[in-house]
Amino acid sequence: MQIDIITIFPEYFESPLKVGLLGKALQKGLLEINLVNLRDFCQDKHRVVDDEPFGGGEGMVLKPEPLYRAITFLKQKSESPWVVYLSPQGEVLNQKIAEELSQKQHLILICGRYEGIDERIKETLVNQEVSIGDYVVFGGEVASLVLIECIARLIPGVVGKKDSVEKESFSSGLLKYPCYTRPRDFMGLKVPEVLLSGNHMAIEVYRRQKSLELTLKKRPHLLRQTQLSQEDLKFLANLLKKQRVYLFLLHYPVYNKRKEVITSAIANIDLHDLGRLGRTYGLKGIYIVQPLEDQRELAQELLDFWLKGGGAKYNPLRKEALKLVKIFPTFEEALDAVHRQEGEKPLLIGTDASPKKPPIPIETLQKFLWETPIVIVLGTAWGLTEEFLAKCDYFLEPIWGRLDPYNHLSVRSAASIIIDRLLGLYSFYKKSYKRKD
Amino acid sequence: MQIDIITIFPEYFESPLKVGLLGKALQKGLLEINLVNLRDFCQDKHRVVDDEPFGGGEGMVLKPEPLYRAITFLKQKSESPWVVYLSPQGEVLNQKIAEELSQKQHLILICGRYEGIDERIKETLVNQEVSIGDYVVFGGEVASLVLIECIARLIPGVVGKKDSVEKESFSSGLLKYPCYTRPRDFMGLKVPEVLLSGNHMAIEVYRRQKSLELTLKKRPHLLRQTQLSQEDLKFLANLLKKQRVYLFLLHYPVYNKRKEVITSAIANIDLHDLGRLGRTYGLKGIYIVQPLEDQRELAQELLDFWLKGGGAKYNPLRKEALKLVKIFPTFEEALDAVHRQEGEKPLLIGTDASPKKPPIPIETLQKFLWETPIVIVLGTAWGLTEEFLAKCDYFLEPIWGRLDPYNHLSVRSAASIIIDRLLGLYSFYKKSYKRKD
Repeated sequence: MQIDIITIFPEYFESPLKVGLLGKALQKGLLEINLVNLRDFCQDKHRVVDDEPFGGGEGMVLKPEPLYRAITFLKQKSESPWVVYLSPQGEVLNQKIAEELSQKQHLILICGRYEGIDERIKETLVNQEVSIGDYVVFGGEVASLVLIECIARLIPGVVGKKDSVEKESFSSGLLKYPCYTRPRDFMGLKVPEVLLSGNHMAIEVYRRQKSLELTLKKRPHLLRQTQLSQEDLKFLANLLKKQRVYLFLLHYPVYNKRKEVITSAIANIDLHDLGRLGRTYGLKGIYIVQPLEDQRELAQELLDFWLKGGGAKYNPLRKEALKLVKIFPTFEEALDAVHRQEGEKPLLIGTDASPKKPPIPIETLQKFLWETPIVIVLGTAWGLTEEFLAKCDYFLEPIWGRLDPYNHLSVRSAASIIIDRLLGLYSFYKKSYKRKD
Repeated sequence: MQIDIITIFPEYFESPLKVGLLGKALQKGLLEINLVNLRDFCQDKHRVVDDEPFGGGEGMVLKPEPLYRAITFLKQKSESPWVVYLSPQGEVLNQKIAEELSQKQHLILICGRYEGIDERIKETLVNQEVSIGDYVVFGGEVASLVLIECIARLIPGVVGKKDSVEKESFSSGLLKYPCYTRPRDFMGLKVPEVLLSGNHMAIEVYRRQKSLELTLKKRPHLLRQTQLSQEDLKFLANLLKKQRVYLFLLHYPVYNKRKEVITSAIANIDLHDLGRLGRTYGLKGIYIVQPLEDQRELAQELLDFWLKGGGAKYNPLRKEALKLVKIFPTFEEALDAVHRQEGEKPLLIGTDASPKKPPIPIETLQKFLWETPIVIVLGTAWGLTEEFLAKCDYFLEPIWGRLDPYNHLSVRSAASIIIDRLLGLYSFYKKSYKRKD
C-alpha cells in the first residue's frame, strides 16, 4: 500500500513515522508513505498556499490551484487512487472504515489547516471526507497520523501475531478485558485468581465475560455489530438484570384539560400495551395507580382473564406480559412495593410534556441504571400535577415535536419511546436468535 | 498549564510539538509539555517496562511498578494533578471533555502500548480514561497528541483571534460552513454570489444556514446540544420537510394466530395514536388499509367527528393529528396516493418481528430520508404476510427483546419506537420553545 500525504507541514511527520511498529513497517516496506509539500505545487515565487476567505472573517483558506495540481499529479501514480480529506465535516472514523481503507492500494490524504480547503476541491477531487471525532484539532496532520496508524495495523505483517490484532479493543467488536502482569501482589492488590489457575478454558471465559461487561457498560452500541453466542447473550441478559426499571401509570393526581386535578379512568389497552412493552424490554413492573375501587376491580378482572382465565390459554404470550402489571390504590403504596422488592429506595423520574426545569439527559439516566432501581412515572389525561412532579428526583426530557412544537403523543407512544431511548441500546437478542413459532 | 506525558517513546513527540500554532504556543510558554520516559522509572539494569500477561496470550503488558513510580513522582509537582490514561476503554473525547480538561492546571497523560497497562494502576492512580474514538491505534502517543491539540487550542492566546476558535466546527456546536477563496471562477466552478456581495448580514445568514444544514445532514446529534434561535429552528424545520415519511397500517393481508391470511378490524385507538405520533414527528401521512367497506365507513365516521364534528371544537390538537389519517380500500391505492402526492415512487419498507432476510440498518435508512419518499408498512394482527413482505424494498430491524427473545409489542408501541429511532434524532424544538398552555 502506498499513502501520499499532502500537507504544508511535512516536517510534522518526521518523528512519529520512525517509532515503534509503524516505523518498522515502513523500514520493511510493508507500506510506503510519501510526504508531499503542498508548497511545491505553487507557481508563484513566494509559494503562497492560502488566501483570505470570500465573504470575510478571520483565518485563511487553502487555495484551490496548488491542491488541484498536487492531487492530479499524485493520482497519476496509480490506477486506483483514493483521495481522503481529513476534516471535521467527514464521517467519523471507526474500525469498519479503517478496514475498508486498508484494502485500498493507493491513498492520497489531504491535511487541512487554518479554516480548511476551498470547497470546490472537495466537490471535484475528494472521494471521502473522514473525521477522527467530534472535537477540533489544529489541522489534518494529527488526523492523518491517527488514520495511518489505524490502517497500518491492519496490513498483514505489521503487527507480529494475528492474535494480537484480533484481541484488541474494537477488532473483535468488543472492548478489551483488563490485563495484569507481575507481581501477583502489587501493594496489596492481587491478580484475579483465575488468571493464575492455568485453566485455559476458564481464562478464556473470564476474559470474554470481562470484555462483554466493559463493552455493555461503556460502549453498548458496539454490541449491536458484534457476533454474540448464546452464552454471550445469556451472560449479558444476566448483567442487564441489574438494571431495575419500573413504569408507573398514574390516574391520580393528574390534570384535566382545564388544569383541574382529577382521577382519570383506566384504559384497558394501556394495561396490554405497557405490559407487552415491559416484558419486551425486561422491565420489573408496570404499576397502575387508581384510587377508585370499582375501576381497580374492573382492571383486576381483566388481568385475571389473561392470567388465569380463558385468555391465559388463548394467548400465553399475553399472559407473560400482563404478569408484570399490578394495580395500586395510591402512588405511595406502589412506591413502597418497589422499595420492598428492591431493598432500596428507587430514583423517581417524572415525565412532563412542558417541564419548567431542565430535564436529565437520557445518557445520565443510563449511567444511573447500573446503580439504583428507577421508577419512571407517566400521567394519564393532561399529565401529572405540578405538586406531584415537585416530588420527583428528576424529569425526563419531553419528546419534542420535529417541525414545530406540537408534542401530543398518547401515553402508550410516550412510554414506548421513553423506554426504547433508555433501554433500546441494550437489546442484543437479534444476532443469534430465530423465533420458532 | 502543565502537561506531563508518560511514554516509552518520548522521541515520538519530537517533530509534532515543533510545528504550527502548537509549536509557537510552547515556545511562548502558553503551555508547558514535559516528556517523561517511563524507562527512567525502572529500577532494573535493563530498564524493562513490560512483562507477560497473567493468563497467557500474545503481547505484553506495561508493568505496574515503573508506572506507579512515575505517576506518584509527577503528582508531587503540583497541588491538583489530574491523571488521564489514553485508552480505547475510556469515554470518547468530545469538545465538552476537551473544554473540561483545558481548565486543569496540571495534566499527567499516560500513553499505553502493547496490550495496555496493568489494571491495578488504572484502579488506583488514574482519574479519567479517555479514548479518541472507536478505532485502534498503535498506542497512546497519537491519542495524546490529539488530546493536546484539542486542549491547546482552547488556551487563551494560542489561536490568534478568538473568532477563529469559535467559528470552527464543534466549537459553536455546529459543523463549519464551506469556505472559498480566490479565484472567483476555478475551472468553471464559481464562488456563491452571496459571498461576493459585501452584504455582511446576508453572508452571516448564508454561513449559519450552511452550518445548520451540514450538521443536520451529517451529525444531527450535535444539534441536540446547540443553542438554536427561532430562525434556526424555522430553517431546520424547512429542511426536514424534505424528509417525506408515510406510515401505512395494513388490516389486509395479515396473518392470524394460525398463519392464515385474514382481514383484521380497525381499532379506533390506532387512528388516534398513530395520528398523534405522525403529527408530532412531522410524518406526511398515516394511511390505513382496510378492504371491508363497513369498517372503512365506521372509521371515517370517527375521523369526521374529530375533523368536522364536536371533537374538532373540543380538542383542536386532536383534529390536527387526525388530519393526517386517511383510509384506503387497498394497499395499491394507498401507495398510488403517495406516488401522486410526491411525484415519485416511494421506497417501501416492511416490518416483521421475525424476518428471514437481513434488515436494513436504521442509519442507512436515515441516509435515504434525504433522497426519496419512504413508506413504512406495519401489519396488524400477527403481522404482514410473507407474500406482501417480498414486495418491499427493505425490512426494518425488528425491535428485539432485551433479556430474552420475547418481542411482542403492540402495533402502537412498535410504530412509536420505529418512528423515533428513524426521526427522533432530528427533533430540536426543545431549545427555545416553551409551551404556553
